[in-house]
Amino acid sequence: MGALIAIGAGIAALTGIGAGIGIGIATSKATEAIARQPEAKGDINKALLLGCALAEATAIYGFVIAIMIILFLK
Amino acid sequence: MGALIAIGAGIAALTGIGAGIGIGIATSKATEAIARQPEAKGDINKALLLGCALAEATAIYGFVIAIMIILFLK
Amino acid sequence: MGALIAIGAGIAALTGIGAGIGIGIATSKATEAIARQPEAKGDINKALLLGCALAEATAIYGFVIAIMIILFLK
Amino acid sequence: MGALIAIGAGIAALTGIGAGIGIGIATSKATEAIARQPEAKGDINKALLLGCALAEATAIYGFVIAIMIILFLK
Amino acid sequence: MGALIAIGAGIAALTGIGAGIGIGIATSKATEAIARQPEAKGDINKALLLGCALAEATAIYGFVIAIMIILFLK
Amino acid sequence: MGALIAIGAGIAALTGIGAGIGIGIATSKATEAIARQPEAKGDINKALLLGCALAEATAIYGFVIAIMIILFLK
Amino acid sequence: MGALIAIGAGIAALTGIGAGIGIGIATSKATEAIARQPEAKGDINKALLLGCALAEATAIYGFVIAIMIILFLK
Amino acid sequence: MGALIAIGAGIAALTGIGAGIGIGIATSKATEAIARQPEAKGDINKALLLGCALAEATAIYGFVIAIMIILFLK
Amino acid sequence: MGALIAIGAGIAALTGIGAGIGIGIATSKATEAIARQPEAKGDINKALLLGCALAEATAIYGFVIAIMIILFLK
Amino acid sequence: MGALIAIGAGIAALTGIGAGIGIGIATSKATEAIARQPEAKGDINKALLLGCALAEATAIYGFVIAIMIILFLK
Amino acid sequence: MGALIAIGAGIAALTGIGAGIGIGIATSKATEAIARQPEAKGDINKALLLGCALAEATAIYGFVIAIMIILFLK
Amino acid sequence: MGALIAIGAGIAALTGIGAGIGIGIATSKATEAIARQPEAKGDINKALLLGCALAEATAIYGFVIAIMIILFLK
Amino acid sequence: MGALIAIGAGIAALTGIGAGIGIGIATSKATEAIARQPEAKGDINKALLLGCALAEATAIYGFVIAIMIILFLK
Amino acid sequence: MGALIAIGAGIAALTGIGAGIGIGIATSKATEAIARQPEAKGDINKALLLGCALAEATAIYGFVIAIMIILFLK
Repeated sequence: MGALIAIGAGIAALTGIGAGIGIGIATSKATEAIARQPEAKGDINKALLLGCALAEATAIYGFVIAIMIILFLK
Repeated sequence: MGALIAIGAGIAALTGIGAGIGIGIATSKATEAIARQPEAKGDINKALLLGCALAEATAIYGFVIAIMIILFLK
Repeated sequence: MGALIAIGAGIAALTGIGAGIGIGIATSKATEAIARQPEAKGDINKALLLGCALAEATAIYGFVIAIMIILFLK
Repeated sequence: MGALIAIGAGIAALTGIGAGIGIGIATSKATEAIARQPEAKGDINKALLLGCALAEATAIYGFVIAIMIILFLK
Repeated sequence: MGALIAIGAGIAALTGIGAGIGIGIATSKATEAIARQPEAKGDINKALLLGCALAEATAIYGFVIAIMIILFLK
Repeated sequence: MGALIAIGAGIAALTGIGAGIGIGIATSKATEAIARQPEAKGDINKALLLGCALAEATAIYGFVIAIMIILFLK
Repeated sequence: MGALIAIGAGIAALTGIGAGIGIGIATSKATEAIARQPEAKGDINKALLLGCALAEATAIYGFVIAIMIILFLK
Repeated sequence: MGALIAIGAGIAALTGIGAGIGIGIATSKATEAIARQPEAKGDINKALLLGCALAEATAIYGFVIAIMIILFLK
Repeated sequence: MGALIAIGAGIAALTGIGAGIGIGIATSKATEAIARQPEAKGDINKALLLGCALAEATAIYGFVIAIMIILFLK
Repeated sequence: MGALIAIGAGIAALTGIGAGIGIGIATSKATEAIARQPEAKGDINKALLLGCALAEATAIYGFVIAIMIILFLK
Repeated sequence: MGALIAIGAGIAALTGIGAGIGIGIATSKATEAIARQPEAKGDINKALLLGCALAEATAIYGFVIAIMIILFLK
Repeated sequence: MGALIAIGAGIAALTGIGAGIGIGIATSKATEAIARQPEAKGDINKALLLGCALAEATAIYGFVIAIMIILFLK
Repeated sequence: MGALIAIGAGIAALTGIGAGIGIGIATSKATEAIARQPEAKGDINKALLLGCALAEATAIYGFVIAIMIILFLK
Repeated sequence: MGALIAIGAGIAALTGIGAGIGIGIATSKATEAIARQPEAKGDINKALLLGCALAEATAIYGFVIAIMIILFLK
């Protein structure tokens, strides 16, 4: 039984793929934006942080589910 | 039985992939928009928050379903 | 039996991926639009809300089906 | 038997992915269009509503089939 | 036997994904076109309706097949 | 036996995905073309109709095969 | 045995997806081309017809194979 | 045995997807090219025909293999 | 045994998808190139032929393997 | 049992794909941004580091889950 | 046993997909390059030949493996 | 048991795909950036190294998990 | 046993897909670069050769693994 | 047992796909960069080599894992 649980936890962890790509896209445009308007870097960094935090959250949901699967269903 | 439930919960958690990519795309353009029109940053941040909150919600739906699967179907 | 139901509910919850990406795309262009035409922000936000609400609805359909699967078919 | 029905209903609900992405694309361009031509917002919103309603319909087809599967084939 | 039928009906309903994305793409350009040439909105809406109706039809084919599977093969 | 036939019919119906996306792409450019050259709308609509009819045909092939599977192989 | 034949026929019918998308792409550019050069519409329509006929042919190959599978292998 | 042959023939027929999309892309650019340089339509059509014939050939390879599977391996 | 061979031959035939798309892309740009520089059509056609022949070869490899599977492993 | 655990751990490790692509996209734009505005390199590098750290975190979640699967479920 | 070998050979032959698409992309740009700089056609054709030969080689690797599978493992 | 472990290790090793593509994208833009601003090559190379090291790390996570699977679960 | 080895060798040979596409992309831009700057063809060809050799190497890794699977595990 | 190991080694070898595509993208832009700024070819080649070496490394990780699977788990 433990073995199939391992697969379930692995699938849950995959949720981080979306956040990984999303944060990368956000950061790429943020560096471009800073280069274009260096004096707005404070505001750009705030928006970047806001978006990345929300995207990171989706990865954390998957992480939490994976941990719950390992601990609760063992 | 618990093992297949783990896979179900893992699949449900994957829903966060969409939100992760979506929030990343939204943030990327928001930073660009702030760089182009720094004085509109308040309005841009409001629209960004509105969109990200709705996108985040889709990840939370998956998260809730995953938790329900773990708790109710165990 | 409960285990396969879990997989069904998980698949249903995945519907949110589309809404997550879609809302992100919509928000990204909305922030760009506000930066280009800040005085039209009211109209832009209205169109954004309209679209996001309809897109969110598709995620909710999946969420509802997932809940129905968990409650009715258990 | 109920379990495989759950998977069938879940797959049917996935139909909403297309509508979710489609409505997002439509909304993204609509906000851009309003920013470019604010005085045409009425016509733009009408076209947006028409398209979104038709796209939403495809999600509803999947939703209806999912409900029918749960109720009729149980 | 009913269970596999449910999966067949679910797959058939998925046909709506194509129409959902297609109608979204069509609507997105239509709103842009109205913004560029507001006085041609009647002609644009006619072309949009023509295309969306044909695209919607593909979703309806899938819907009809799903219903036929549920009713005839039960 | 009926159950696997249902899956076969469902797969056949999926053929409509291509037509759904294709018609959407065609319509999107057609509305743009009408906005750019409103006086050529007759010719544009003719080309649009020609293409959409041929694309729709591919969806109908899938639909016909799905019906044949349901009726002949039951 | 009939059931697996149904799946084979369904897969063969899927060939139409490529033609559906291809014809859509071809038509989209053709409408744009007519808008740019309305007096060349005859030549554009000829090239469009030539291409669409050849693309449609690929869908018909799949259709023919599907029919052959249903009739010959039943 | 006949049933698995049906699946093999169906997969072989799928080869037409590539040709369907490829011919569509080729035709789309050819119509654009004719609109830009109507007096070169003869040469453009020759190149289009050459390419489409070669692309169509790949679909025919799949078609021939599908027929051979149905006739030789039955 | 013959049945699984059919699937193997079908998969081998699929190799033509790459060539189908590739030849289409090559032809699309070649028509564009002829429209831009009609007097270089001889050289363009030579390069097109060279590339298409090499791409076609990849489809033929798959075709040959499919034939060998049908004849040698029957 | 150990064998299925190995597959689960492998799937969990795959989470790094998203971060790998995301960091690559972010870095690509950062180098472009530095080339455009060399004097803003400090700010660009800070934003790049912030984004990459968050993206890397998603890969680490998958890594941690993989280790947990190997150690706890053996 | 021969049957599974057929599937292995088929998968190996699929390697040609990459070369098919790659050669197509290379040829497409080469024709464009010749149109832009007809007097450099010799050098362009050399680079095209070099690249296509290396890409073709990857298809030949797959072809060789497929032949080896058919001959050595029968 | 060893056999399934081999598949798990293989899947874990696949993590390198993301890093491979990501590093390629980063390098492509870095060479472009150096060509545009040769005197900033030091800073560009530093950012490139930083990003590539972090991306490479994701591949190494997968590599480490693969080694752990082979050594610990044998 | 030989049969599953055939599938393993086939999968290993698929590695060439990446190299096939990659070399094609590299060659396409190289021909464009030669057309833009014919006098730099020596340097362009050197960079092209360097990149293609490294990309080809990835295909050769897969080829070597496929041969090793056939010879060592038979 | 040896047979499943072959599949595991094949999957591990697939890691080279990412590197193959990535190196191709990097090389494509490098040739373009050399054409734009021939005198910076030294620096461009250094950056290209650095990136390609790191990308190649990801393919080598997969290659090493594949060899380890074949030698250690036989």
